[in-house]
Amino acid sequence: MPNGYCGRILHVDLGARALREELPDERFYRKYLGGWGFIAHELLARTPQGIDPLSPENPLVFAAGVVTGAAVPAGGRHAVGAKSPLTGGFGEADVGGFWGREMKAAGYDAIVITGQSASPVYLWVHDGDAEIRDAAELWGKPTADVQRLLREDLGDPKIRVAQCGVAGENLVRYACIMHDVNRAAGRTGLGAVMGSKRLRAIAVRGTGFPEAADPDGLDQARDYILGLRDRWAGFREHGTAGGVLSMNEVGRLPTRNFREGQFEGAEKITGSTITERLLVARDTCYACPIACKRVVQSDGAYTVDPAYGGPEYETIAALGSSCGVDHLEAVAYGNQLCNAYGLDTISTGVTIAWAMECFERGLLTADDTDGLDLSFGNHEAMTQLVEGIARRQGFGDLLAEGTLRAARAIGRGTERYAVHTKGQEYPMHDPRFQFGLGIGYATSPTGADHMHNFHDAPLESEARAAQLQALGFLVDPMPRDTLPREKAAIAATIIRFQVLMNCIGLCMFPPYRPHHVRDILAAVSGWDVTAIELLRVGERALALARVYNAREGFAAADDTHPPRFAEPLPRPDGQGVGLPAKEMAEAIDLYYELQGWDPVTGAPTPAKLTELGIPWAAESLDG
Amino acid sequence: MPNGYCGRILHVDLGARALREELPDERFYRKYLGGWGFIAHELLARTPQGIDPLSPENPLVFAAGVVTGAAVPAGGRHAVGAKSPLTGGFGEADVGGFWGREMKAAGYDAIVITGQSASPVYLWVHDGDAEIRDAAELWGKPTADVQRLLREDLGDPKIRVAQCGVAGENLVRYACIMHDVNRAAGRTGLGAVMGSKRLRAIAVRGTGFPEAADPDGLDQARDYILGLRDRWAGFREHGTAGGVLSMNEVGRLPTRNFREGQFEGAEKITGSTITERLLVARDTCYACPIACKRVVQSDGAYTVDPAYGGPEYETIAALGSSCGVDHLEAVAYGNQLCNAYGLDTISTGVTIAWAMECFERGLLTADDTDGLDLSFGNHEAMTQLVEGIARRQGFGDLLAEGTLRAARAIGRGTERYAVHTKGQEYPMHDPRFQFGLGIGYATSPTGADHMHNFHDAPLESEARAAQLQALGFLVDPMPRDTLPREKAAIAATIIRFQVLMNCIGLCMFPPYRPHHVRDILAAVSGWDVTAIELLRVGERALALARVYNAREGFAAADDTHPPRFAEPLPRPDGQGVGLPAKEMAEAIDLYYELQGWDPVTGAPTPAKLTELGIPWAAESLDG
Repeated sequence: MPNGYCGRILHVDLGARALREELPDERFYRKYLGGWGFIAHELLARTPQGIDPLSPENPLVFAAGVVTGAAVPAGGRHAVGAKSPLTGGFGEADVGGFWGREMKAAGYDAIVITGQSASPVYLWVHDGDAEIRDAAELWGKPTADVQRLLREDLGDPKIRVAQCGVAGENLVRYACIMHDVNRAAGRTGLGAVMGSKRLRAIAVRGTGFPEAADPDGLDQARDYILGLRDRWAGFREHGTAGGVLSMNEVGRLPTRNFREGQFEGAEKITGSTITERLLVARDTCYACPIACKRVVQSDGAYTVDPAYGGPEYETIAALGSSCGVDHLEAVAYGNQLCNAYGLDTISTGVTIAWAMECFERGLLTADDTDGLDLSFGNHEAMTQLVEGIARRQGFGDLLAEGTLRAARAIGRGTERYAVHTKGQEYPMHDPRFQFGLGIGYATSPTGADHMHNFHDAPLESEARAAQLQALGFLVDPMPRDTLPREKAAIAATIIRFQVLMNCIGLCMFPPYRPHHVRDILAAVSGWDVTAIELLRVGERALALARVYNAREGFAAADDTHPPRFAEPLPRPDGQGVGLPAKEMAEAIDLYYELQGWDPVTGAPTPAKLTELGIPWAAESLDG
Repeated sequence: MPNGYCGRILHVDLGARALREELPDERFYRKYLGGWGFIAHELLARTPQGIDPLSPENPLVFAAGVVTGAAVPAGGRHAVGAKSPLTGGFGEADVGGFWGREMKAAGYDAIVITGQSASPVYLWVHDGDAEIRDAAELWGKPTADVQRLLREDLGDPKIRVAQCGVAGENLVRYACIMHDVNRAAGRTGLGAVMGSKRLRAIAVRGTGFPEAADPDGLDQARDYILGLRDRWAGFREHGTAGGVLSMNEVGRLPTRNFREGQFEGAEKITGSTITERLLVARDTCYACPIACKRVVQSDGAYTVDPAYGGPEYETIAALGSSCGVDHLEAVAYGNQLCNAYGLDTISTGVTIAWAMECFERGLLTADDTDGLDLSFGNHEAMTQLVEGIARRQGFGDLLAEGTLRAARAIGRGTERYAVHTKGQEYPMHDPRFQFGLGIGYATSPTGADHMHNFHDAPLESEARAAQLQALGFLVDPMPRDTLPREKAAIAATIIRFQVLMNCIGLCMFPPYRPHHVRDILAAVSGWDVTAIELLRVGERALALARVYNAREGFAAADDTHPPRFAEPLPRPDGQGVGLPAKEMAEAIDLYYELQGWDPVTGAPTPAKLTELGIPWAAESLDG
C-alpha cells in the first residue's frame, strides 16, 4: 500500500512495456527532496550525453516533493521534467492542482517514463498498481474529452489526469502537460516529450494518504499563512491578472512583443473586467486558501467552455497585450485552445507576437502566413494561429518550433525580434522594469523562466525586509530598475530558496519563510531538518541542472538577453530604459561567483559540487 | 541605566583622558552582534593601516556578544581584540568567567580603549559610569593582588577585574589579559597592547541586568543542554585534561615541541592525577552546568595557590609534555605563574619547548640561556623561564618575543623548529592527527588557533551526524587523519559557526545547534532572526578579519604550516604520518574558493563582501 512520503518510484519503459519499482533510501530523499531535485538527479545521473529530447532515451519525470499532499496551504505542487525539446537543456515545469497529491495517494513519489510505445497508450496508476493501456480512442482529442473518457472508462470520477494534448502529439516544441485540463506544467516543451513517447495521459487515483510524522507540527505554519488571508483578497477576487492595470499604468505590461510597456486596451483584459464579464466561478488547487484560479464562460463572439478554467495573468498578457489583442473573449478562447490542445500559453503568445512584429516590419508577408493578416491586434489571426500551431498546420507548423528555430528557418533578420533566452520565450515580466529579474532570466537552466526566479519587488518596501532578513540579508529598500551589486547576491540566495520550494512541493504564492518550510518538512517526514540544510538542497538542485546544461553543450556565453531588452522601453514619462549592458554583465559575473559557477563553462566548480555533497556530478563534465 | 542588550559602547582615550559613549543602532548589532564581529569592524573601519600594535593608535576592544550574560548555559563569554603584537594581524581572544556579564550589567556592551596614559591607570566602570583612576600601586603586582586591592579600595567584593599582568606591562608579545585571575583571553598578545597603554586593569560592576525580550524563549535551548548533562560528566570530573591519557595512547599528545605524540610521563600529568593529587575545588564560568575549571593547591616542591585556579589541558600539554615535563606541581606552578603574570600558557610553553629543542640540538647553549640547562624535562628551567619571560629578564627577554622573532634574532637555523603560523604558537592539537584542523590552523586570521576552528573529531562518529546535518552536510563518517575534499567544505561552514558563537557570546563546549543559537538570540533580543542569517554573521565577521589581515600585509602565501608538521609524527604502530603537503594545498585552495577568498591576496573577493552586506570593507583594500 502507498507510503506517499519518501516512497516508491515507478519506472515505466514504454518500448519494452515494462514496469518496475525503485525504493530510494531516506538519505536520497533528504538530499534531493523531489521535484526539480529529483528530475535533475535523474537526468544527470541516468541519461547519456547528447540524446535527442524527442527520442525514447529521454526520461519524462513526474516528481512530487516530500511535502506534496500534506495538509498545509498550497502544498499540492509537483514538477515535471525531461531534456527540453525547446532549449536542448534542463527542462522542468512545476504545476499545482490535485494530480500530484493523487499520484502520491496512488502509491508513488515519482513516475519516470522512458522508451516509446508503438501505438498511443496511457498509464493507469491506482493504489500501488500501474498498467499501460491502449489510448487509440484518446489520441487527437481535446484534453477535457480525454479526461472525461478516462473517468468514464475507469469508472471513477475522482481520477486525476495529466496529459500532453494534441500539441504534444504533434511534437510542438512548447507543448505543455495539462493537469486537470486547466493547470499546465507549461514551460520547456515537456508535452512534446510525452507525445514523442505516444503516452497521451497518466491517470492516477489513490484512496489512502499517509499521516504526517507529526500532524500537529503543521499547525504553526498553517496558522501563519491562514492568518495572512487578507493579504491575497485581491488575488482571490480578480485572479493573477488583477494587477494588469497598475502594471500598465507604470509602463510594464508587455505589449506588442515587448516593444512597449503600455497597452491602450489594458482595461479590457484586466482581472476585474474578467470578473465582471466572464467569471462564473473561482477555483483552487489542493489545500489552497488563495484560490487564484478563474473559471470563465462566454457564448459571445467566441464560445468559451468553463471546463478549461480561465486565463491567468501570463496568458492575458501573452495572448492579449503582447499580441496587441484587447478582445477579452478572444484571449479567453485562446486560453481554452491552449488548454484543450496542451500548449504553453506564454511561448504560444510570444511566438505569435514575434510573427506579428515581423509581419508589421515586412519581414514576413501574407505569402508566409497562409494569407493571414498578422497585424498586431488581429484577434482572429491570433486564435487561428493557436489552432494552427497545435495542429502544425501551414504557417503554424513553423511557429510550432518556437521563436528561435522559426526565425532561423525564415532568416531575413527576424531573429532580431525573437524574445527568448536559450530558445525559451519570455514570461510576461519585463526585465527592463526589474533588473534583478534579468539576472535570473539570463542564468536559469530552463531559459527565460519566471517560476524559480528573483522578482525585485520585495526590495521596494520595508515590509518585506523581514523575509530577506530571514535569508540573511539586511538591506535598504531599492528600486526595481536599479542593479546595485547587492541584487546579484540576493538573487543567488532567493533563487536557491525558490528551487527549494519546487523540490519540496510548495507554491510560491503564500509567503512561507524558511523556518515554516523547515517546520512543514520536519512535521511531514519526521526528520530533524534545518532551514540551513534546506537552502542547500535548493542550491544542490540548481547546481545539478547547471551541470546538466554544461554537459549538454551550454556555456556561460549562453546566459544572455535578446536584443529587444537592449532597446529602451518607453515609459509614461517619456523616458526609456533598456537593460544596462555593462551593469548586467557585472551583475551576472557576481552572481556566478556567488553561486560558485565557472565563468567559462557556466557549470558549478568542483569545489562547489564537493561542498554540496555531489562530487559525482563533476565526473559527468570530464567526458 | 544599563541597557545591556545592544546598548552603549564606552570609548576611552587614555592619552586625552577622555571618555565618550556611542550608541550604535540596532541594525549594527544585528549585523555584527558583538565579540569578534565588533572587534573586526572596529579595527577595519576605524583604524589606519600599518599602525604599530604597541602604539597608542591601536584600539583595545572588550566586546560582549548580544547574548552574553543571558540566563542560558555557558552564555557568559566575551572577546578581547586589537591588532596583534604577536602576529601583526587580527588579534582576538575570547574568554569565559564572569567579567563579560558584569561589563554588561555595568552598562556597556563594549569598551574600546585607545591612546596611552603617561602613568599607570585602571578603569573603573560601574552602573553606567566610568572613570580613569591611578594605578601606581597596582603596577608590577601579581594579578591576584591587584584584584584584591581593587575590591578593597573600591569597597565591593563582587567587582570583576580584567588585567594585563606584569607580562603585559613588560610588553611580552604573548601576554594575555586575565579575567578573574584564572581565566585568560589568552592568544595573540593582547596583554601587551593593554600594557602599552599603561592600563593595568578594568574593574567592572553593575547591579542591574535587563530582562530578555522573551525569557520563556530561552527554556528550550536551556533544557536541551541541561538534558545532556551526563555527556560532560568526565569534563566536570577531571577537567579539560581528562583526555590526556587517551590522546597519549593513540599518539597525539604534543610532546617535546611536537616532535613526538607520546609522552612517557603522561599519566603523571593527566586530569585524573590532578583530581587525585591537587584538586581542592571545581570552578565554573557564568551560568555553566559543565564546570570544567580546576582549583588546585600544593605545598610540596612548588607552592601552588588555589587563587589562580588550575591548569587546563592546553597548559598541561604546553608546559608539561611539550616541554617533556612530567612534574605535576611544576606544571601547576607554571600555570600559576602565567596567571599571576598574565602570560598565554600555550605560547609560553611552545616557546620554551622550542628553546629546549634548540638547546638539545646545540643551536642554543648555556651561553645563550644564562647558564640554564634547557634539557627537555627540566621543570626547574621551565618555571624559571616562565618567570624570566614575564619579567623580560636575561634569556627570558628574548623568549618574550615569541618563537618566530626569537628564532630570527638568534639565527643558526633555529627557525626550523619554531612551531607557529603567522607568528602565533600552536595549540595542543597536532594537525597531523586531524588533517581538517590543519586547514583552520593555516588560514585563521589569528594564526595557529584552536578556538574558532574545525576539529575533525565530529566526523568520526555517526552520533555527531545530526549536528553536521543541521549545517547542511550529509556525510559518511571519516577518519581524522584523512583529507577528502568534503573536509574543506565542512570546515568552511563549521568555522563560520564557531566565529558566530564567539560573536554571540556562547561557549563552544555545550553542543548548541544552530536553531538553539537562533532561539537564544531571538529570545534575548526580540529579533525575528533565523539560523541562516546568523551563519552569515559568522561568515561576515570572519571575512572582515581576513580583509583586515590583507590590509595589514598578509597574503595567501602566509597561510602555511611550519616545517615540523611535514615531519612524520611517530605513532604507536611504528608508522609515522606528516601533513600531506599536496592534499593540504588542495584542501586550502578548495577552502578559499568556498569562503570566497582571493587565491593571491587571501582577502574575500568584492563579490563575497557584497554578498555579506559589507561592500565598504572592499574599499580598505584599494589603498
